[in-house]
Amino acid sequence: MSAIELVSSVKSFEGEQRIYKHASAVLGCEMHFSIYLPAASLAGQDCPLMYWLSGLTCTEKNFIEKSGFQRYASEHGLIVVGPDTSPRGEGVADDEGYDLGQGAGFYVNATEGEWAKHFKMYDYVVKELPGVINGNFGVNGHVGICGHSMGGHGALTIALKNPGMFKSVSAMSPIVAPTQVPWGEKALGAYLGDDREAWEAHDAVCLVKGAEERLHLLIDQGTADDFLEEQLRPELLTAACEAAGHSYELRLREGYDHGYYYVASFIGEHIAYHAGVLGGG
Amino acid sequence: MSAIELVSSVKSFEGEQRIYKHASAVLGCEMHFSIYLPAASLAGQDCPLMYWLSGLTCTEKNFIEKSGFQRYASEHGLIVVGPDTSPRGEGVADDEGYDLGQGAGFYVNATEGEWAKHFKMYDYVVKELPGVINGNFGVNGHVGICGHSMGGHGALTIALKNPGMFKSVSAMSPIVAPTQVPWGEKALGAYLGDDREAWEAHDAVCLVKGAEERLHLLIDQGTADDFLEEQLRPELLTAACEAAGHSYELRLREGYDHGYYYVASFIGEHIAYHAGVLGGG
Repeated sequence: MSAIELVSSVKSFEGEQRIYKHASAVLGCEMHFSIYLPAASLAGQDCPLMYWLSGLTCTEKNFIEKSGFQRYASEHGLIVVGPDTSPRGEGVADDEGYDLGQGAGFYVNATEGEWAKHFKMYDYVVKELPGVINGNFGVNGHVGICGHSMGGHGALTIALKNPGMFKSVSAMSPIVAPTQVPWGEKALGAYLGDDREAWEAHDAVCLVKGAEERLHLLIDQGTADDFLEEQLRPELLTAACEAAGHSYELRLREGYDHGYYYVASFIGEHIAYHAGVLGGG
Repeated sequence: MSAIELVSSVKSFEGEQRIYKHASAVLGCEMHFSIYLPAASLAGQDCPLMYWLSGLTCTEKNFIEKSGFQRYASEHGLIVVGPDTSPRGEGVADDEGYDLGQGAGFYVNATEGEWAKHFKMYDYVVKELPGVINGNFGVNGHVGICGHSMGGHGALTIALKNPGMFKSVSAMSPIVAPTQVPWGEKALGAYLGDDREAWEAHDAVCLVKGAEERLHLLIDQGTADDFLEEQLRPELLTAACEAAGHSYELRLREGYDHGYYYVASFIGEHIAYHAGVLGGG
C-alpha cells in the first residue's frame, strides 16, 4: 500500500478534520481525500465509518467546508471520509464542460479513448480507498455510504453493486437514472462508449431491478431543486423500488434547492440515520 | 433611504439565507449584506437581531457558507445580518496586502489620503446599515453584535462606543488591542494617520477604561490560534477589564485555531448566548 501524507489537520467539534494525499495506483495520479476523526477515534477507539461522495465540480473540500456535518459526526462518533470527485492534474484528460472530466468522474471505470487511462473512480472508491482507510485508521468494520447529486448516484450504485459492503446507504438529490438524463448520457457516453448496456451497470434504477441485497435506500430531495425534473427524477427510482419490492424511503423537503444550504439543513438527519444503523463509535 | 435589491435567497433550516445589495451613501459604492431570516420572521413575527462582523479577507459570504450558524439562528428565532468587510469596487482604493484596503476596513472612518473617500465602515455599520435593516425587516429592537478576528475588534469597539445600542456583545478570536499589534498599527496608521490618540478611539482595551456602560464582554479564543501571541493578545483585554471593573468572560478553546472550523464549533454557543440575552423570536 502506498503511503499517505497529511496535508492539513484542524480541530473541529472536539475531533479533527484532516486532508491527506496519496499516490493512487488505480487512478495514476495524486489524490486528496478528507477524513473527519471524532474524539473517540483520536482516543484510540475503533469507530464506524461513512463514505461521502460529492457532486459535480466538487473536490474533497466542499463538503467539509460547507455542510457542517462535523457537529453530527462528533455527536455520533462517526468517521467520515470524502474522496475527490475525479482524478486530477496535468496529464489527466479533461473537458471544458463542468459535467465531464476533472470534477465529474461519475464513479465509473472509463473504457473509452483518453478517459480510460485515469478515470477509474469506481475502482478507486470501491477498492483502493477502502484499503487506504482500513490500513491507516481505526475503523470497526461497520460502513455506510452517502452522497449528493452525482455523488448520490455514486452512493446508490456502489452500494447496489457490492452486496454486504455497506450496512447503510443514503443519497441527497441523487442522479438516480443516468441512462435517462442529460448529465448521465453525456458522461456515460464519453466514459463507457455507445453500448447502453454498459451504462445500465451504473444506473440505480436499473440496478434495483436485479439487486441481490435489499439494502434500504434512503433518498432525500428538495422540491425547489432546479435539476429535479430534467436530471434527478427520483420518481423513476421509487417506481423501480415499488416494482422490485425494494425497500426505500423518499424524504421530500419543501422549498429546498440543490445546494449546500440544503445539504447543511439535512445532513444531520442522514448522519443520525447512518449512525443508528452502524452503531455508535 | 436607498432601495435594497435581492441578490439571492435560499431556504436553510426552515428559514431563508438571503443576500441583498444596495447603494451605500456613506461608503459611496454598492454594498452587499447577508441576512438570515428564521421561519418566525418569514411568518411575519418581529424577531431579535444579531449583527455579525467578519474578519480580514472576508466578504458577506464566508460566514454564511462556512460557519453553519443557520441551525442555531433557526432554533432561537434570531435574525442575523452580516455586512461585507469594506467598501468595494473600481474607484475604491486598495492595497496589495490582505490586511489593508478592500477586505480590511477595520470598522473605522478613514481620514487619511486615498482612504478617506470610501473607507467609512464605522458609520456604515453603526448608522447606515441599521437604518436599512430596521426599514426593511421585522426586527423587535433587541440587538446583539458578534464578530471574528478583525470583526471581533469591530463588535467590541462598536458596542463599547455606542452605549444602549446593543444588549449583547461577543467576539471570537478578536483583535482586542489594535494600537499595540502589527495588524492594527498598519491599518489604523493608514486610515487614521499618525495621531495615536485617534487610534485609541477604536481599541477595545483603551475603550474599556472609560466605558460608560458595563455591557458584559464574552470573548472566545482558540489556544492553537497562530495569531494569538502577536496579533490578538486577549490577556490585554482581560487585564483592562479587571482594572476597570468591567464584566467579561474569556472562553479558551484548547487546540482550536483561527479559522472557520473553530468558528463553526462554537458559533452555536455564541448564538445561544445572544438569544438568551435578547429573548427568543
